[in-house]
Amino acid sequence: MKDLLRAHFEKIITLTDSEFEYISSHFTHKKLIKHQFLIQEGETVKNEFFVLKGCLKSYMIDSDNKMHVLQFALPDWWISDYHALYKQVPSSLYIDPVESAEVLVISLEDKEKLCNELHKVEHFFRKKTNLGYVGLQQRVLGLINTDARDRYEQLIKQYPALFQMVPKQLIASYLGVTRETLSRLYKNPK
Amino acid sequence: MKDLLRAHFEKIITLTDSEFEYISSHFTHKKLIKHQFLIQEGETVKNEFFVLKGCLKSYMIDSDNKMHVLQFALPDWWISDYHALYKQVPSSLYIDPVESAEVLVISLEDKEKLCNELHKVEHFFRKKTNLGYVGLQQRVLGLINTDARDRYEQLIKQYPALFQMVPKQLIASYLGVTRETLSRLYKNPK
Repeated sequence: MKDLLRAHFEKIITLTDSEFEYISSHFTHKKLIKHQFLIQEGETVKNEFFVLKGCLKSYMIDSDNKMHVLQFALPDWWISDYHALYKQVPSSLYIDPVESAEVLVISLEDKEKLCNELHKVEHFFRKKTNLGYVGLQQRVLGLINTDARDRYEQLIKQYPALFQMVPKQLIASYLGVTRETLSRLYKNPK
Repeated sequence: MKDLLRAHFEKIITLTDSEFEYISSHFTHKKLIKHQFLIQEGETVKNEFFVLKGCLKSYMIDSDNKMHVLQFALPDWWISDYHALYKQVPSSLYIDPVESAEVLVISLEDKEKLCNELHKVEHFFRKKTNLGYVGLQQRVLGLINTDARDRYEQLIKQYPALFQMVPKQLIASYLGVTRETLSRLYKNPK
């Protein structure tokens, strides 16, 4: 299962076998069943997760008990509550799998240690964070663009695999539209 | 004016005088008058900007010609269209000062060079991007939380200085509320 992690690192940096062995020794493997939380609101967050199988979602629950999806994470993606992780404040999010899933877990402490020990690992994580930042920028632009059809078309274009893996109800929550609006968008493509 | 830049780096890393001289030699100083664009929609983006004075805003213009503010940048903050910069696609944003402003400019090419040459500079920018990511995560949560009062209170708490520097109309655009709704929030604090 660590082949996926190595391929993931080697998209950006080159690693010797012994370097990869050393890096991967800081990860632990975890299987999750549906509804098994990785993070719950109010908790302290110490870890970051690399998705091997399945799809995870991070979301908030508002004061009316309504769920709002912040992010989906498919295989080869990272997920955590980064606000809670980096600022060491209690989590404002829940993270759990859409169906069953498998992840590799690394603690913030070990990630920082690896970044400190190996310049190229620091380079890798800077580049990954840049891409995460860009993804979030697009997420904000999607949210402030008031046209639901544009948001929907952009999501299909950006992440086609999501539509196979995630129930329509969660896609609607991510897009900030009702289930009925989403059905209309499906039935009447541009 | 480069004292602010040095202090900014030294919040995270320690630099010798010669290291800082070398780093700062990659920045150029730029004064901006109101409405002078740093970035316009459709342009290629090659640079990132560190704010010395004033306040910059990045925003999109939607198909109804309505402005939506993505981000404000006060002194000691960075701003660019990172999607356009990192993915080398045309910008979807405009960036200009709220009033006059001063920035330091660094090209992506020079930033990558510095990160490659000096591990601690790479460390610095990884940490800064982490914080930028966290800021955007909070921005998304603010947008998907439907309660305008919560969004308003969170912004006041997070960035009190904004309310002195930025016209109410731009604050309303950032929060995604009308000017009238914002006035009601001002007049009736919790």
